[in-house]
Amino acid sequence: MKEIEAAMDLIRRGADELLIEAELVDKLKAGRPLRVKAGFDPTAPDLHLGHTVVLNKLRHFQELGHHVMFLIGDFTGMIGDPSGKNATRPPLTREQVLANAATYREQVFKILDPEKTEICFNSTWMNGLDATGLIRLAAQQTVARMLERDDFAKRYANRQAISIHEFLYPLCQGYDSVMMKADVELGGTDQRFNLLMGRELQKHYDQAPQCVLMMPLLEGLDGVNKMSKSLGNYIGIAEPPKEIFGKTMSVSDTLMWRYYELLSLRSTDDIAALKAEVEDGRNPRDAKVMLAREFVARFHGERAADEALADFEARFQHNAIPDDIPEVRVVVGAGMPIFKVIKEAGLTGTTSEALRMIEQGAVRLDGERVEDRALPLVAGGRVVLQVGKRKFAAVVLA
Amino acid sequence: MKEIEAAMDLIRRGADELLIEAELVDKLKAGRPLRVKAGFDPTAPDLHLGHTVVLNKLRHFQELGHHVMFLIGDFTGMIGDPSGKNATRPPLTREQVLANAATYREQVFKILDPEKTEICFNSTWMNGLDATGLIRLAAQQTVARMLERDDFAKRYANRQAISIHEFLYPLCQGYDSVMMKADVELGGTDQRFNLLMGRELQKHYDQAPQCVLMMPLLEGLDGVNKMSKSLGNYIGIAEPPKEIFGKTMSVSDTLMWRYYELLSLRSTDDIAALKAEVEDGRNPRDAKVMLAREFVARFHGERAADEALADFEARFQHNAIPDDIPEVRVVVGAGMPIFKVIKEAGLTGTTSEALRMIEQGAVRLDGERVEDRALPLVAGGRVVLQVGKRKFAAVVLA
Repeated sequence: MKEIEAAMDLIRRGADELLIEAELVDKLKAGRPLRVKAGFDPTAPDLHLGHTVVLNKLRHFQELGHHVMFLIGDFTGMIGDPSGKNATRPPLTREQVLANAATYREQVFKILDPEKTEICFNSTWMNGLDATGLIRLAAQQTVARMLERDDFAKRYANRQAISIHEFLYPLCQGYDSVMMKADVELGGTDQRFNLLMGRELQKHYDQAPQCVLMMPLLEGLDGVNKMSKSLGNYIGIAEPPKEIFGKTMSVSDTLMWRYYELLSLRSTDDIAALKAEVEDGRNPRDAKVMLAREFVARFHGERAADEALADFEARFQHNAIPDDIPEVRVVVGAGMPIFKVIKEAGLTGTTSEALRMIEQGAVRLDGERVEDRALPLVAGGRVVLQVGKRKFAAVVLA
Repeated sequence: MKEIEAAMDLIRRGADELLIEAELVDKLKAGRPLRVKAGFDPTAPDLHLGHTVVLNKLRHFQELGHHVMFLIGDFTGMIGDPSGKNATRPPLTREQVLANAATYREQVFKILDPEKTEICFNSTWMNGLDATGLIRLAAQQTVARMLERDDFAKRYANRQAISIHEFLYPLCQGYDSVMMKADVELGGTDQRFNLLMGRELQKHYDQAPQCVLMMPLLEGLDGVNKMSKSLGNYIGIAEPPKEIFGKTMSVSDTLMWRYYELLSLRSTDDIAALKAEVEDGRNPRDAKVMLAREFVARFHGERAADEALADFEARFQHNAIPDDIPEVRVVVGAGMPIFKVIKEAGLTGTTSEALRMIEQGAVRLDGERVEDRALPLVAGGRVVLQVGKRKFAAVVLA
């Protein structure tokens, strides 16, 4: 029983919601390795830390001895957007899907144990499903139930078109769970409806319904918005070591602990101990350096991590950036020249003063001297600006 | 041009709505035989005159030299009701479908010319459609458009369940038109939505959209409700000659002309001439006898028609039923004993008088002496009641 409690603690770590907890306990008690499913988009995979929240949780299941099924949803990807309304979603060819899968594999095995991971493609069973099978599947759900899904409900209320095939996709996702005999499915909180569809369909097919573990959407570097490429507030796992290290160092202390919970592979106990030390007076920057080092080590190896750390120390600590930099928020939108940002951040009284300081070589951005006085800063992320010897600000770019 | 005008007159005869008239004129002008589609239910076919309205219209197209495609919708029939909610719609086997098709053939070739009729099964192409194909099809329509269909709109408003597969069936029917390259589709007015679906899908598949010819739902013997087996107000095409003849003679004069328009194979000119004669004083019963004779001849042959006519004359005309029988409506519901109906119809002042007249052998129902004083009469149809020598009433049973 103690073992199961410990397993449940690890499973629950950072999770937003678990359905149904008692069912999962029963499944764990049975003692056999659980079949744990998570589905991923088959389009060009360029993962950032936001994507790794679910991967990390899969890793937890692997550590507990369970069987992880990494599902690439290539069936719908190969259909594309058949309504033709979304020109940015052309159908993928079999070759593209396989190429993407290879890239995925390369990236996810930085977190998952390849020995305990099964890569699945849902085209394997969906290509064998005929129209009759799909009609039978569609008979398992009602229109009203489907219109309960948040985004459908909103679009229907706003009279925005919903193509009928969009109703079939959640059913296909649920059917994947049937075909994979999933015991547990992981996904983001935004996948709630589709994850529950798996439970309902499994019941129709006389299977024990899967438990559903929903992970939160990771906040980006700004600590407010969801991490996303389009917002620019992300850390890509393929980014150079210096970038990953620097970006990690730029997050707020609160967000650092969030990242520890959701992204670190350190044990819960280790993290609790570190937090206690910081509460007792240890510099939180030490914890942030450890996290930044962990990320670089995971995605680029130990040696790159050491180098990134040394580089960071050379640039920042030797520049003697104080620990208690004030944080300010500046709305820069799609782009604001740096001299304006300096003024807005209160580092100079006027923009002309800011321009003069840049010309004198007295302005540093994240420790590097700024040459271009009109250098545009865009929303997303957090930078450290230094003007002269003593004026610093951590600027959250919004 | 005159020929096309004549063709359009025949096509329009009795029709409720034609979409789009100008398109059909263009298709006729092209001079090639048109591909004319009508779909039929694959469940046990026991046709009544209501079903033959569309068959008659197909016959008109054959007379005009076009190619008729009689489509048996066996694909969905073999799926049954996959939601399992409708126990009365179990899936049909391939054998049942073929047996039903044979019965259909036997019945419809009493109206259609076998030489010019192609019997089609939509399983031919639907069984070859895979899930991808069905998803592409489903992408062609929106949820909002589907919820415009009358019955869906009502059920959705009343919070009655609509299974998602029900949205797929109209799409399948439309896809049939694509696969059959239909130029024209015929159906009842209740099929409006599904018929138009064919037009929309053909456009998506770069075909000229089919014209849609909607035939009215035939009124039953009561002249009010739609002819249907469950209402009992029907003439089945497999009924014995005497039944067909007698039931036809029981309809009102107004309804007789409606039946001429929709069911007779006589030319429009012939019918107009007959109507003129009646307006000039000819007994409408003559026209009714001609129609009754036509129906029996069509379904049982000339000889049976002659016999039925002779039998009818022997029973009725020799009993000297007057021409101007008053018509009354009696609500009998699921069954009322004949002695009560007699009183309700005003043929006697009291029920005890009605009972006495029956005991004296002085009551006739459709010309035949009534022996059973409690004989139940049920709603649907019209009967002639005679009490004594001179009291008559045509009773519409409601």
